[in-house]
Parts: sequence; C-alpha cells; structure tokens
Amino acid sequence: MNHFFKVKSLEEVKSLIKEFSPVGSETIPVCDAFSRILASDLIAPKDMPGFRRATMDGYAVVSSSTFGASESSPAWFDIVGTILMGEIPDFDLAPGQAAKISTGGMLPKGADSVVMVEHTEIVDDFSVEIYKSVAPLQNVIDASEDFAKQDTVLSKGTLIRPQEEGLAAGLGFARIEAYKIPRVGIISTGDEIIPIGEEPAPGKIRDINSYTLAGFIKEARAIPVRYGIVKDDLVALKAAIKKALDETDMVLLSGGSSVGTRDFTIDALSSLPDTKILVHGMSVSPGKPTILAKAGKKPVWGLPGQVVSAMVVLKIVVIPFLNMLKGLEQKDRSIRIPAKLTRNVSSAQGRRDFIRVLLEKKDNQLLAKPVLGKSGLIRTMIHADGLLEIGDHVEGLEKGTLVDIILL
Amino acid sequence: MNHFFKVKSLEEVKSLIKEFSPVGSETIPVCDAFSRILASDLIAPKDMPGFRRATMDGYAVVSSSTFGASESSPAWFDIVGTILMGEIPDFDLAPGQAAKISTGGMLPKGADSVVMVEHTEIVDDFSVEIYKSVAPLQNVIDASEDFAKQDTVLSKGTLIRPQEEGLAAGLGFARIEAYKIPRVGIISTGDEIIPIGEEPAPGKIRDINSYTLAGFIKEARAIPVRYGIVKDDLVALKAAIKKALDETDMVLLSGGSSVGTRDFTIDALSSLPDTKILVHGMSVSPGKPTILAKAGKKPVWGLPGQVVSAMVVLKIVVIPFLNMLKGLEQKDRSIRIPAKLTRNVSSAQGRRDFIRVLLEKKDNQLLAKPVLGKSGLIRTMIHADGLLEIGDHVEGLEKGTLVDIILL
Repeated sequence: MNHFFKVKSLEEVKSLIKEFSPVGSETIPVCDAFSRILASDLIAPKDMPGFRRATMDGYAVVSSSTFGASESSPAWFDIVGTILMGEIPDFDLAPGQAAKISTGGMLPKGADSVVMVEHTEIVDDFSVEIYKSVAPLQNVIDASEDFAKQDTVLSKGTLIRPQEEGLAAGLGFARIEAYKIPRVGIISTGDEIIPIGEEPAPGKIRDINSYTLAGFIKEARAIPVRYGIVKDDLVALKAAIKKALDETDMVLLSGGSSVGTRDFTIDALSSLPDTKILVHGMSVSPGKPTILAKAGKKPVWGLPGQVVSAMVVLKIVVIPFLNMLKGLEQKDRSIRIPAKLTRNVSSAQGRRDFIRVLLEKKDNQLLAKPVLGKSGLIRTMIHADGLLEIGDHVEGLEKGTLVDIILL
Repeated sequence: MNHFFKVKSLEEVKSLIKEFSPVGSETIPVCDAFSRILASDLIAPKDMPGFRRATMDGYAVVSSSTFGASESSPAWFDIVGTILMGEIPDFDLAPGQAAKISTGGMLPKGADSVVMVEHTEIVDDFSVEIYKSVAPLQNVIDASEDFAKQDTVLSKGTLIRPQEEGLAAGLGFARIEAYKIPRVGIISTGDEIIPIGEEPAPGKIRDINSYTLAGFIKEARAIPVRYGIVKDDLVALKAAIKKALDETDMVLLSGGSSVGTRDFTIDALSSLPDTKILVHGMSVSPGKPTILAKAGKKPVWGLPGQVVSAMVVLKIVVIPFLNMLKGLEQKDRSIRIPAKLTRNVSSAQGRRDFIRVLLEKKDNQLLAKPVLGKSGLIRTMIHADGLLEIGDHVEGLEKGTLVDIILL
C-alpha cells in the first residue's frame, strides 16, 4: 500500500514542458481567429491605413496657415471643396484653403491637418473662419502611422484577441495560419465512480471530475473529449488510454482517488509502448498524487481524485502545458491580483501550498479571505474567487500580508 | 453638420440597463453548462457526498480509542476488515477496532475518523499499531459536509464556472435550466467601408470593426451574427436593422465614422416602429459618438466608427448590457488590477477618460505604462493590456499614482 517515490517540486514539473511540442497548424478564416494562436508571423502587405485620413469632423488645411489663429484673431480660409466619405479628393489644397471633411475621410494632397468643426465658424458657402491653430498631422492619421509595409505586426505564437483579429482583417488577411485547437481526452477511473444520471449507492460517488475538468479545458479554449468511466481494470484502462492517445493531443485520467486506482494508472502507463513516467508525486498541496507520463510525444496526466485537488492541479500545472500545446509563446498575460490577507495561514515547508480565497473589496482595498474547508469539499471551490500560492520555504503568512491571487 | 444634443455620463448610460430584460431560458445538458448562467435556483436533492468518506488512505477507527497514542506509546488495534472502494462495509466498528480504507472509501458504522497510513505500522494480518491520535471527523468528510439536502447550492443568475458545472453534475442534475446564449447582430455601415477581401482604393477602409466586435462578443461567450456592410442608404439600413432585430437579441451598428453615417443611423432608428433613442452622445473618451436606442424590447447601439473608440465602448458599456441580457445577477467578479502609473496623464474635466496601458512587472511591482497614439490607431490596442479609467472630476493623474486597470 505504501509508495515511496521522489516527489518533484512544482518548478521541476513545469520545466518538463520542454519535453513536448505544439500541435500542428492549419489555415483558418480570420472570422474564426478569436482565441486562436498565430502559427506564423503576420507581415503588413501595405501601409495601414494607407492614406492620410481625418480623425475629426472639420476642415482639412495646411497647418502653417492656421498658426496664430485664435478666438480674438481668427484665420480666414477659402472653402474649395467637400470631401465625401470614401472618395479620393480630385483637387489639391494650397495654404489659405480649406476642404470640408468628415472623420475617416481622405485628406486632399497638400493638406496636413484637420481643424475641428467646433473651432470654426462658417461665413458663407465659400469661406470659413478658424479660431484655433493646428500642428502638422493634428487630427489626422498618416498613411503608415498604424503600420508600415513589411512591418511584422503580429508574431508567431501570439494569442489572437478581438483587436488582433481586427488588425488581421484590416490588413486584408481573409485567412491566417493558426495552431490547431488541442483536443484533450478525459478518462474517469475508479470502481466507486458512477455516471451522474445514476443514484449513488452508499460508497459510490458521481463522476464530478470529468465535468469540472471539461469546463476548465473549455475555459482554456481547447476541446474536451470524454471517454466515460473505466473501472479499476488494467486491460480496460490501457485500451481507453490508447484510444484517447490516438484521438487527442493530451490525456487526463481522473476520478478514482484510491491507491488502487493510482496503481492501475501507473501500471497501465508503464505498460504502454514508448511511454515514460516523468512525474509520480508532486510537492504541491492539494495535488500531491499527480502523475505525468510521456506517451509517444503526448502528455498523459494522472490527476488526484479529490475534486479540489484535481482542479488546483489542472489550473496550476496542466493549463501551462496546454498553452504550450496550443502554440502560445508570448509573455504571460495571466496577471495575479494583489490583495490583503484577512487571517494567518500556515503552510508546510518544502511544499507549495495553494489556498482557496474569496476576494472582497472593502474601503477601496481588496481583501483575500481564506475559504475554510477540506479539499474534498467542492463548495470550497464554489465559494472561492482565486488561489493564493505559498512558497516552498515559507511556513505561513501573517494576517495583513499583501499577497498575489491567481483568479479562478 | 453640427449636432447639439445633451450627452449622457457613463453612469447615466449604464443605468439604462434597467430598460431591458434577460433573454429567455432553456433546458440544457449539464455537460454544456460551462459559461452559461443558471436560470433557476439549484437545490440539493440529497446530502452530498451522502456518506461518511475517507479523505486519506489509512485505517477507519473510533477516534476516542486513539487518544493518547504516540510514537513512544502506540495504540494497538484489531483489524476487522478491508473496505473496498465503492463498497458498503458489512460490519460495524467498535472501539479498539480498525478497518483498512482508501481515500474515498465509505467508513463503517461506528467509525468517525481515519488514521493516515503513514502513522501506522502493521503488526500482522490482524493487528496494527497507531502512532498518532485523531480527532472526531479527522481525515473524513461527513455525509452532508459539502451540502445538505434542500440547501440552495447555486442561485439563479450564477455564472457556471467549471466548479459549478461539477457541482451540478455531482448532485445528479443531468440537465439544468439556463438562460439562452444571446445573439448579437453586427451591421457595418458607411460608404467608405469595404469587405476585407477587397483592395482598398484611397479613401476606403476595410471592415475592421465587425471583426473586433465579433471577437469581443465571443470573448463574452455570446454569439455574434454578421449582417455585412450597408452603404449610407436609409432604406437599406432600415431593412438591415429590422432583419437583425428579428433574428438577434441586441444589435450593433458600426463602421462608418462620418457625421453622415451617424445621421443615417439616427434617422433609421427614429423611423423604426416602437423605437426610442435613449442615448445620443456620451461623455466618455474615446467613445463620445455613441448611440443607444430601444427598439421594441431590444437594445440597438450605434458605436463610434474609430476602431479604438468602438472597442472601448464595447468593453466598458455594451458588455455590461450583454451580461444583463445573459441573465447574470451575481456580484461583479471582474476584478481591476492595481498598478503604478509610469507617467503623468491628463484628462478633461466632465468627461470619463479611458487610457490604454501596457502592464509590466518590475521589482515585484506592476507598472501601468500609458500607450501613446491616436485613438484611430489599432496598434494602440494591440500593445495594450488594459484600460485605465479616469473620473469625470479629475484633471489628470500624476506619475507614481496607484491606479486600477481593467484588463483587455
């Protein structure tokens, strides 16, 4: 019943990301690009916006003609035309001349700025007074001011947020090269686990974990694939893992929390061809009984059976691996939230602890309130807004300490 | 060309949420519940977990029999059985007796705690020594410790995160009542807007906004529906809005930034049956030329044409409306990130300013660096991680001020 193996630190486990590589890429329509990862650099094929455009409604002018203009001493301009939206002005502008223009309109040749309509007064159909001077390029965007031709506007490995999707569209990329969306297989294991539609006899428990895990996979914008519940049977478990490895990019085993189930997991993984156990135990609480194997080129995780432990391990350890599989290369945008701890918390040395906390704003200060309760209780995660990480060499943190919270 | 209308403050615009109601609800499988909003309270039909289970591998005991046990003076227990995973123990436990149990196993009647295997030493097949005392309920979860029968475990209006999905599954809800996913119609307007596949002639600009807006709608876990580009033509615009109102729950008009296009938007909305203009201008920068109408029971937005303005208005104003349509009622979980401002920023009084910032960690302090550049430049949003909100009555903020950042 006892297993003595060398547990790995969180950093040791995370460093094993280098054992794996991103999934392949594919060409997708830019309208489907949101939340995907760029698989090749995006180079501007032309200047953007490509012409000098107004950013205000008003009059296009040669800025030098406005210098010195003020309320008390307005400058007088001849109106030489009106620029319609989306049209190329068919005239040039000379000093002392103005052309009516709308936001987004193209400036005529010669014009280098726009005077806001609020700073003008129409005299008649042919003349306008200007009350305020403008600097060169004021209230305009120049032809290559957003991006110049041949600029690398987005690099491989970038997460495509709404603004990146818009930029790609604006540069005329109807299709882009993106990493495929990883598929993650989820296998529930353990004799005590029953489908959620069944009434649990005493000693049985519904298959909670495959639902929470699938939720986290969706939250990470990947695709969960469920393989149902496998009893503690070596042949059946091996068959399920093989099938999941064939069809997905990463496999999660979860559900059973007994030593027996964990033994089956290790036995099944050890007997798969071309498979190496990389992690068998991790000095993280909750989350110690975590297993990681490399099967062929794919990661297979044996997650703790306790529902909260499984969630913490998924969030803290598995998601970074998933992000690498997705092709994400850019700086980590996952920001931690500073908050003030409302009570003392203790922690074991030589172990990374993750404490569930509730966040509350009081007097303009964010408070982190530890959520009490055993790690087998799902309600502790329901009440929690985030996780507080406590370092390996810290015995605990005192009430009032400013801590950084990982949002849940 | 001039429009004088009373602009509304951000708070006045947000308070108009009360004019609208959530979309209807539907019954969905719990495996599809992630990111949905509960449309009715979830009541525990039974205790959870429903039986007294072990949270450690070890021996189930009557805790009082262990009192006083220590390394130097172990307590001697008779092993009366082994509890297999998922089975109901067919024996009761008396003081001085122990039963081998695995994490997740059901305690026999009489047992109130579990001694961890690490604190025991097997003597022979029938006896075990225990080196550490346990308290009642130590290393176990009691039958109703997670949730008791009839508890309201999740209330109507709750966002279903992975843990809420798992909880619903664990309580046996194969299906739940959730609000429908709102559909958001997007109509691009303006003579200067062309499809992204076309090469823009000078003065024309590709339809960037409908892509960024669709991305934000997807980010908010709703469904964007595109209605293409409509030229500045009142009949065509009215027809497009009518069609979008028939098929979606909220409509966004965006693209053209000219006064002409805005006039068409107002004219089209004003001439729709049962339609009222609620907002025509908002004292927010960027984002002033924002229009909100109530058409029947649905919100219709005229967004600014400038790409950055449209994004800011969507993020700051439209998404809260969308969350209400989704049925979200719980406390606002959108946390702002405290960071230190790296330079002075100025702001106009009587206006809410949103400054794009880049976040950078330096010496354990998060820095907010304002991203310079005009609001027509999409690259300012590409470089930005967040938005800094500056109040109506603030003239500016000094370098070094601790500010709260809205993540982008």
